[in-house]
Amino acid sequence: MEHAAVYQRLRENIEKTISVNQEQMELILQHFKPQKIEKNSITLRAGEYNQWMNFVDQGCLRIFFIKDDGQEVTRYLAFEGMFATGLASFITQEPSFEYLQAMENTVVLQINRNDFYYLLHIIPAWEKFFRDYLADAYINNITIYHRETTKDAEERYRELLKKDPIVVQRLPNRIVASYLNMSPETLSRMKRKILDLPK
Amino acid sequence: MEHAAVYQRLRENIEKTISVNQEQMELILQHFKPQKIEKNSITLRAGEYNQWMNFVDQGCLRIFFIKDDGQEVTRYLAFEGMFATGLASFITQEPSFEYLQAMENTVVLQINRNDFYYLLHIIPAWEKFFRDYLADAYINNITIYHRETTKDAEERYRELLKKDPIVVQRLPNRIVASYLNMSPETLSRMKRKILDLPK
Repeated sequence: MEHAAVYQRLRENIEKTISVNQEQMELILQHFKPQKIEKNSITLRAGEYNQWMNFVDQGCLRIFFIKDDGQEVTRYLAFEGMFATGLASFITQEPSFEYLQAMENTVVLQINRNDFYYLLHIIPAWEKFFRDYLADAYINNITIYHRETTKDAEERYRELLKKDPIVVQRLPNRIVASYLNMSPETLSRMKRKILDLPK
Repeated sequence: MEHAAVYQRLRENIEKTISVNQEQMELILQHFKPQKIEKNSITLRAGEYNQWMNFVDQGCLRIFFIKDDGQEVTRYLAFEGMFATGLASFITQEPSFEYLQAMENTVVLQINRNDFYYLLHIIPAWEKFFRDYLADAYINNITIYHRETTKDAEERYRELLKKDPIVVQRLPNRIVASYLNMSPETLSRMKRKILDLPK
């Protein structure tokens, strides 16, 4: 099963981060189960206890939360080859304040939280895998926080175009705006302005 | 040396998180060196490569960054028994965008980054220690981001009074305001308002 094509991307992701032998790799992969998620489906809601870590094989997942005024804030987007989960609740096992939604018809490989933590006990290299995962999540977060605190809407949009053009290419304006923490109207104004400007 | 009183708090912090034998504990502690930092001294500046992890034995450290308009944003405060470092640069070894400053006359136990990472190789439990450290840093960050995005100034101040009163007790208004991402004037208004209100 773990030799199936659907595991290839995950296998490569793991091999990039840690050294494991064939037996350990199969032990890791057999805890990940393929799952289809239909476009727009929400698989984790605020208030729920998050039990799943997802690896995106095809499609796109987004993590967002909802402000008191109903506005959505998109905090993270995962495309092919990336992990995504409501990480705070996954770690603490307190109720999630985040939602997880498929933005396209998506195929994920899912591992249950118990299995994920079990792997930490039986495969020492999995500790390094999780450590690197958490370090990346931390860097990603602090970068967003720093960007939103120090950069204006235009700088944030230009940076996204440069570093993560896939976000603008694959997702609707409404989601891109909520990822950059600006209104869709501001994003549209940015887009017009930047297209008009000489490079 | 590692039996000195200055190591007691650090020893307890480590024992709370991981199981290590006496030999491993001494190996860990001997890489931490006591260091005095005078009040207001800055030991890490934006643009520098952060080489140090600090454990606060006495005093207080703060991590902040400076916006283009010169305004400081306090991102993290560490009192006795807490670790503090410019974590993004510590992990990535890219230039820091954060500053580290002593808010009081402070005694820290410092470990060099190379030694910290060396411990990961020789003491398996140190992986769990760092993993838990990163998880806490992630949770702390996402909580601040969520709070600032969803809660107004008064809610943020009330939450701080409830969860972290030490911040208000030990630090000047200017720093508390920059920690809550509000102006000192707004903070003063909050304080007056909350003192006037019945509980």
